[in-house]
Amino acid sequence: MERRAVSATDGVIYDFTPDLEAIHSVDADAALTIETLDSLEGAVQSEDDVVESIPEEVNAATGPIEVEAASPGDVLAVEIEEIRIVEDAGRVITIEGFGLLADDEDIEAPRSKMTPLEESGTAITFEGLEIPVDPVIGTIGVAPAEGSYDTLVPHDHGGNLDTTDVTAGNTIYFPVFQEGAMLAMGDCKIAMADGEMCGTGAEVATEIDVSLEVIEEPAFDLERPLIETPDAWKPIASAESMLEACKIANKDAVELLAAEHEFDATEAHMLSSLVGGLEISQVVDPLVTVRNAIPKDYLSDPFDLE
Amino acid sequence: MERRAVSATDGVIYDFTPDLEAIHSVDADAALTIETLDSLEGAVQSEDDVVESIPEEVNAATGPIEVEAASPGDVLAVEIEEIRIVEDAGRVITIEGFGLLADDEDIEAPRSKMTPLEESGTAITFEGLEIPVDPVIGTIGVAPAEGSYDTLVPHDHGGNLDTTDVTAGNTIYFPVFQEGAMLAMGDCKIAMADGEMCGTGAEVATEIDVSLEVIEEPAFDLERPLIETPDAWKPIASAESMLEACKIANKDAVELLAAEHEFDATEAHMLSSLVGGLEISQVVDPLVTVRNAIPKDYLSDPFDLE
Repeated sequence: MERRAVSATDGVIYDFTPDLEAIHSVDADAALTIETLDSLEGAVQSEDDVVESIPEEVNAATGPIEVEAASPGDVLAVEIEEIRIVEDAGRVITIEGFGLLADDEDIEAPRSKMTPLEESGTAITFEGLEIPVDPVIGTIGVAPAEGSYDTLVPHDHGGNLDTTDVTAGNTIYFPVFQEGAMLAMGDCKIAMADGEMCGTGAEVATEIDVSLEVIEEPAFDLERPLIETPDAWKPIASAESMLEACKIANKDAVELLAAEHEFDATEAHMLSSLVGGLEISQVVDPLVTVRNAIPKDYLSDPFDLE
Repeated sequence: MERRAVSATDGVIYDFTPDLEAIHSVDADAALTIETLDSLEGAVQSEDDVVESIPEEVNAATGPIEVEAASPGDVLAVEIEEIRIVEDAGRVITIEGFGLLADDEDIEAPRSKMTPLEESGTAITFEGLEIPVDPVIGTIGVAPAEGSYDTLVPHDHGGNLDTTDVTAGNTIYFPVFQEGAMLAMGDCKIAMADGEMCGTGAEVATEIDVSLEVIEEPAFDLERPLIETPDAWKPIASAESMLEACKIANKDAVELLAAEHEFDATEAHMLSSLVGGLEISQVVDPLVTVRNAIPKDYLSDPFDLE
């Protein structure tokens, strides 16, 4: 199958809305290479380039891409095959009033550091330290059911999830809320810690190879993004407080485990308290994001239950 | 070196206070086997035994053990060598008003499930599912600087940390606040998810082999518990909100990274945003607990800097 190229010059969005207009239209089982801009669109090329405040337009997401067979009620599976770094450096920055330690007087903002890619292409350097290249897609999502979410916000449509598991080798599943799903992605990092504490990872432009699949009449009624890793299924939830996000992600895990094992909610809740567990995605965006890992030993394919 | 046996019948505590009276006194480099009761002290032996409300005395911690050379300003290192299950089953329970989904009308409380140990001793069963034995010490701590903390509460002295990394093969470090440190531990689980969502793991009685070491004049001024795993150092922080706990754990990571690399706080904060990251310990106790993993690739021994 031919791999379709989607360039950022074809179009990017800064808001996920219900009525997006597609820049490309592809088959339900398409293979794509999607070019993404760095989240700051080239504004930081040296330590002298600092970002005084969060730009009004940030986290450009390349797309939207209409997936022809996708209709509301379906699930869109996005298998992330490879994320290639297409710059010779990333950058990590602080912005005043942004980040976990924004109130800490020892933290200087704005400030920028470049993280040059080593010749091998497998590591970057940060102030002389070597950090393995382990790319993450920060912003990825589909057109929401209603409302408008700028690309700094994570929610049930995806968006700025900033989740380290959104990486090559994993598949992310989205509910389809609108005809054609309207997939868009950007805001990649060469490396990022769980939490994204200073407000960014090592932000970078990339090319991303993905394969799409539309799951019709899914056995599980997906309400928000779900990640599949080689070992686990992880519902992802975003909310105003971390505790609220944990409740949503755990409730999703309870529903998945209950459906798989024909448990009642209490039994599934108890099982969720014994295996896998809650993980932090990011604690710095306008809504915070957590996920709840369910080892595959306890959950097969939630979209294809017998 | 002889291994000293510490029995729960020698004494348990339900409060960590500044003026604890020791049940044993040991050398600074002692090896101990500590017997611990299950957190409910045998009250749940079948599904018919339900717990109507959190008992006034819960999480009995065997001790306190006076470590002779330990003085305020020192660090007590507790290497966890082995945790042996000494019952033929654990139990996972819900209690009304307790747990992440306590407000959820689908969750029944009180309710109890037994998790019998398989003959191999390497797994338990939960409603027919096999779960590997992977024991955790739920409550472990030392006498605090001031104030009284019951054994349901985690704080800077340790206490009810409910952290899956407090397991065999890892070492937990505590600040010494009082003469003799006054170590106590209990509340073990056969298995537990990060988060301990329903309010318990598979609660069980154990025997724990530990080795102690007192670090005098530590290079790093430890303020709260720190875990060493084979791959990472993890400051542990408890607070009223998850975000506040994340801030404390990240600030600790920033201080450790700054000291190691002679970075300023901003550089260390940026590095913390690229590698390792925030992890959830528990979200159900009176204070919640998180930790911040710093891979050993970026942090050697914080107590022994050159």
